Amino acid sequence: MNIEIFPIGVIHSPFSMLEGMPIQPAGAAGVQGTVEVFEAFQAGLEDLDGFSHVILLYHLHRSSGFDLRVVPFLDTRPRGLFATRAPRRPNAIGLSVVELDRVEGGVLHVRNVDVLDGTPLLDIKPYVPEFDGPTGVRVGWLEKTQEAVRDRRSDERFK
Amino acid sequence: MNIEIFPIGVIHSPFSMLEGMPIQPAGAAGVQGTVEVFEAFQAGLEDLDGFSHVILLYHLHRSSGFDLRVVPFLDTRPRGLFATRAPRRPNAIGLSVVELDRVEGGVLHVRNVDVLDGTPLLDIKPYVPEFDGPTGVRVGWLEKTQEAVRDRRSDERFK
Repeated sequence: MNIEIFPIGVIHSPFSMLEGMPIQPAGAAGVQGTVEVFEAFQAGLEDLDGFSHVILLYHLHRSSGFDLRVVPFLDTRPRGLFATRAPRRPNAIGLSVVELDRVEGGVLHVRNVDVLDGTPLLDIKPYVPEFDGPTGVRVGWLEKTQEAVRDRRSDERFK
Repeated sequence: MNIEIFPIGVIHSPFSMLEGMPIQPAGAAGVQGTVEVFEAFQAGLEDLDGFSHVILLYHLHRSSGFDLRVVPFLDTRPRGLFATRAPRRPNAIGLSVVELDRVEGGVLHVRNVDVLDGTPLLDIKPYVPEFDGPTGVRVGWLEKTQEAVRDRRSDERFK
């Protein structure tokens, strides 16, 4: 039973290559980009400008295939894929929480963009702490390395 | 350019009908459910048990079609679809942050489940505050109504 999804827009960022990319929004602090929403869907952007952050879902279009164990950027040993944010996944759907500067017509101006230029947009959801921001969080193997994400950059391993 | 995705598991919850469902995890506080991951993908669950929360992506399989303006559960006037979490979207991909109690083989025992029983699972990502929990958040039209989400339940409008 397969499900069909399709782009509703395109994400533009300064990153044209996987190499050198920040690997999460926290590592892309301040990096500006735009989210171009196709005309057919622009009416759905109404009221979005009141939100400071949005969740972008997108197609990890440069990833292909997957391994169930991967060595994450932030570690030196293999981890279960679903305990990582590695882009090569059974369903190549990426998720980033970005800061929304402003909406101009069909274009969102956003900050902290950690995706490749030209990435197909699948959905935009408002970020709501009451829904999306749990407290008392533990982060397993990332506990000691979470801080490092700010400085690490992508390399070739996830192509 | 369509993209094919497919279920990697099934989410089980106490909710067999859209009516009466909590509309977000915050409204499903304590509600227990399980996430059954198909055998072919179970090796990817290694290391996940160190995380207290996971992000589930799933197919909103009971939603069909979409309107670009909807009256959200929490409001009385139409809002742009992308400024809401309404399940009828161009790409029917749902996202919930749930609490992870434990992992037993291929089954995650989770809390705060706000999805229908039988929902097809697309992806599991670890919830990492550094990536997913921005601070200084504004929530637009939801500002005055966010608290109400705890008490509101689904009705027929999103079928």
